[in-house]
Amino acid sequence: MSSVTIKQLAEQLQLSTATISKALCDSHEISEGTKKRVLALAKELNYVPNAYAGSLRHNKSKTIAVLIPEITDSFFSQALNGIEEVALEKGYHTLIYLTHEKLAREEDILKTLVGGRVDGVLMSVTVETNSFKHIYEFNQHLPIVFFDRVCPEVDAARITTDDFECGYKATRHLIEAGCRHVILLSISNSLSIISERIRGFKSAIAEYDLDEHDCRVVNCTQDPLENYRLIKAMMQSDNRPDGIVATVEKLTTEIYLVCQQLQIDIPKQVKVVCFSNQPSAVILTPSLTTITQPAFEMGKVAATTLLKLLKNNMLRVKDECTVIPSKLIVRNSTTGQQADHGEPV
Amino acid sequence: MSSVTIKQLAEQLQLSTATISKALCDSHEISEGTKKRVLALAKELNYVPNAYAGSLRHNKSKTIAVLIPEITDSFFSQALNGIEEVALEKGYHTLIYLTHEKLAREEDILKTLVGGRVDGVLMSVTVETNSFKHIYEFNQHLPIVFFDRVCPEVDAARITTDDFECGYKATRHLIEAGCRHVILLSISNSLSIISERIRGFKSAIAEYDLDEHDCRVVNCTQDPLENYRLIKAMMQSDNRPDGIVATVEKLTTEIYLVCQQLQIDIPKQVKVVCFSNQPSAVILTPSLTTITQPAFEMGKVAATTLLKLLKNNMLRVKDECTVIPSKLIVRNSTTGQQADHGEPV
Repeated sequence: MSSVTIKQLAEQLQLSTATISKALCDSHEISEGTKKRVLALAKELNYVPNAYAGSLRHNKSKTIAVLIPEITDSFFSQALNGIEEVALEKGYHTLIYLTHEKLAREEDILKTLVGGRVDGVLMSVTVETNSFKHIYEFNQHLPIVFFDRVCPEVDAARITTDDFECGYKATRHLIEAGCRHVILLSISNSLSIISERIRGFKSAIAEYDLDEHDCRVVNCTQDPLENYRLIKAMMQSDNRPDGIVATVEKLTTEIYLVCQQLQIDIPKQVKVVCFSNQPSAVILTPSLTTITQPAFEMGKVAATTLLKLLKNNMLRVKDECTVIPSKLIVRNSTTGQQADHGEPV
Repeated sequence: MSSVTIKQLAEQLQLSTATISKALCDSHEISEGTKKRVLALAKELNYVPNAYAGSLRHNKSKTIAVLIPEITDSFFSQALNGIEEVALEKGYHTLIYLTHEKLAREEDILKTLVGGRVDGVLMSVTVETNSFKHIYEFNQHLPIVFFDRVCPEVDAARITTDDFECGYKATRHLIEAGCRHVILLSISNSLSIISERIRGFKSAIAEYDLDEHDCRVVNCTQDPLENYRLIKAMMQSDNRPDGIVATVEKLTTEIYLVCQQLQIDIPKQVKVVCFSNQPSAVILTPSLTTITQPAFEMGKVAATTLLKLLKNNMLRVKDECTVIPSKLIVRNSTTGQQADHGEPV
């Protein structure tokens, strides 16, 4: 580790800086003997090439950016784990940007990234992203791979899970467990993944011929306290649901808190299933039935796809879309059976 | 958003590229009138400077790196939130590297970063980091700010919390709640933060004159299944503890699972306090008493300190160390009282 420069190598070996530079790049113009001398000294003095000089010359930054709404969510932190694993293995660096669900922030970030700082972008759009011009324009210059929250209007690779099926499976599971008044808690009107989950929900409601007035979609917000009040009012109303599908992990806390406070028994009085990757699902009382997404895997595939596109820009993005299924993991919040007290494997 | 170049701006305005470049940098050599024309056209054509050309010229990358052991931990994800907030506000970009608690990975990452890719590093060392040469050498070239897990051997700024006091407070709280056989679960023999928590633990044990044989430190691992078995064996032994201080968040799951399985009542038969920032602490049964760290704040202060050092390298790092206190939040896992069913604010 040092700040030895090409010039110093050149001086010490009495060669030109151009020769040193070419030798370090394994150029055919340089003899094997000279290359060996240069590499030996470079190694001895711990020469490290200047990252930016390299990237300017090759027009490659070996850096990718990840744009996600938040990091304090198990799905996104596990996905980032997968992305970082692939990037590090392939010698790429990972810039991280949190949009905090703000469209303006997403626009600003993409704008700063067109200047050559990154070779491509992995992104999951915000709940506010209902216009796509900034993404479309960015994608004219540099490749984007969407994961989880995609933007169908932009022709880019997409790594998603089977959101329609999951919405359907979660709802059907509640209905088959005896629920007749199922509510789906949403957080967005524009997100493609939520729309798909809602479509699956509605499809199950229609299939089992439940009352569409009782079985409706309730919109939550980004504010935990507001959500707590909204869920509390819902659970105190005469027309209280007996089944809840929560489309985002963080709603778990408010649902459990409200039920504890109102002494509503989960699962006897209301059954709950959450889209969630949180490890604590197993130790909640009752343990929480979840739709668990392949977050780590989705991150890995998204990063692998982006690096593949960077290597070969002739690939058709349509061929680079992957759907990785999620799993319904049934626990006590929907069955009320005793926990299976095996080892946590 | 486009790939308009300085050359194109120069052609269109019939000026030299040097003039355009200087005008964009607000150079005093260029007249106000010319500057206005250049800026107007740059804006119209959506000119974005090449990040690497800029960084090579100014020898600044406007990028910082964050090295953390893992991201699927509430402390580190909340700290990253704080770091990213400051970086974005100040126009810096944030590279993220996960060491996964491996010293070799930490060494490799630092080695790739000396080449000019970043201006400085924020880091929390791995549990394996018991040699410091790689950090010391890196710090000769570029500034490091440690947060949470520091390396006392290296003369760099440190943002920490009051680990000794927290180890002491958590243990004293258990003793005052009636525990006489308190165990501290550790995950490392080398981490400074864990050593400090252990010091605090031992100090409380000595102060209350408890049996040092009963009240000992138990070493856990990075493997959840191994930890589960270890905790289970401990709770099945004749010499079972009546109080547990868990020094890392992820041990919560195993402690609760074991107690559920062995039908050991928390807090009646064993009281539990965890160093944890997980939001689900409030909805566990019983709700979990925690030492909650100022993670977001520590991230913000760490990033602010690094940017301050980058601006002024004459600052003495000793003056740039900050200790931000954590809080003991008492809940049912140590008191057994009914939950306070107020709003979750």
